[in-house]
Amino acid sequence: MRKNFGVKSWLYPQPVLIVGTYDAEGNPDAMNAAWGGQYSPNQVVLALGKHKSTENIRQKGAFTVSFATASQVVASDYVGIVSANDEPDKMKKSGFTTTKSEFVDAPLINELPLALECKLVKFNEDGKVIGEIVNVCADESILDEAGNIDAAKLDAIIFDPANATYLKLGEKVGNAFQDGAKLK
Amino acid sequence: MRKNFGVKSWLYPQPVLIVGTYDAEGNPDAMNAAWGGQYSPNQVVLALGKHKSTENIRQKGAFTVSFATASQVVASDYVGIVSANDEPDKMKKSGFTTTKSEFVDAPLINELPLALECKLVKFNEDGKVIGEIVNVCADESILDEAGNIDAAKLDAIIFDPANATYLKLGEKVGNAFQDGAKLK
Repeated sequence: MRKNFGVKSWLYPQPVLIVGTYDAEGNPDAMNAAWGGQYSPNQVVLALGKHKSTENIRQKGAFTVSFATASQVVASDYVGIVSANDEPDKMKKSGFTTTKSEFVDAPLINELPLALECKLVKFNEDGKVIGEIVNVCADESILDEAGNIDAAKLDAIIFDPANATYLKLGEKVGNAFQDGAKLK
Repeated sequence: MRKNFGVKSWLYPQPVLIVGTYDAEGNPDAMNAAWGGQYSPNQVVLALGKHKSTENIRQKGAFTVSFATASQVVASDYVGIVSANDEPDKMKKSGFTTTKSEFVDAPLINELPLALECKLVKFNEDGKVIGEIVNVCADESILDEAGNIDAAKLDAIIFDPANATYLKLGEKVGNAFQDGAKLK
């Protein structure tokens, strides 16, 4: 038997995207956005609503997308519930520090080891941010011996929308494009 | 030190969305789509490209989005690598069985316990599917004693885009909108 819940925002699970931007004066900001995804092979979509970060993206034409991690869950949550419009010391209070991206006019969060560096393509017809990924950078601490991303070292978290909790990534259960071939 | 990887589709992690549709003759189909997300409180975006499912959505104006689970990883991967255009017995081979949604003209996958039931709003200016969530339904087997979604029972999987692997959800590490309040 299935239970009907009505209209819920329960796409499951959701990433925990930390969007990095500079304001007009060059001050870094970060916000937590769960509503977004891959939009094409080299583009992302972010559904941000009205935020200081949204205005920053409009002004600078650039942003970074880092992925919240288990060790940074408090800071990552904080930047989602406090606006830099209300708290001028938001970044300092979060504990996040930043370094300017080599590729776009936006800050990388030093404490978050994987990030997409994006140029604004446009705000689309629905007001969503469409960004072009011009580079992906990763801290060496999360790479395996072959130099690839090690998901366990990254330790990214995910948002459980039905319970408003953050969960860790778990163990590997399969290989994409291989497991399904068994049924061919 | 950070390593630059260039342009990669590494939004991290990604959901494993199983899109359920009926074709013009009412035959059910399912496909695996990692590129999508929440688009507004009651809307989802799917970046599907040209697929039989995309055409089905256009014709029927409806689809479901279920979430792949650890126990269904092989079937969930299979429906992403085989097209019903090439394999008429795709659904039978996958092992997935279906029941028509009460709310939209699209099939629910019986083996996947959580699903969004969506009406097509439009294909947007970039050709992406925008759907309105008209109901969310869950099998009683994944509910906790209070009747809410239990993430551990759901056992949804996620896609690790850098390694093309599927991972389980892990343990809870925090509470959204609460943990960050500690830094206020």
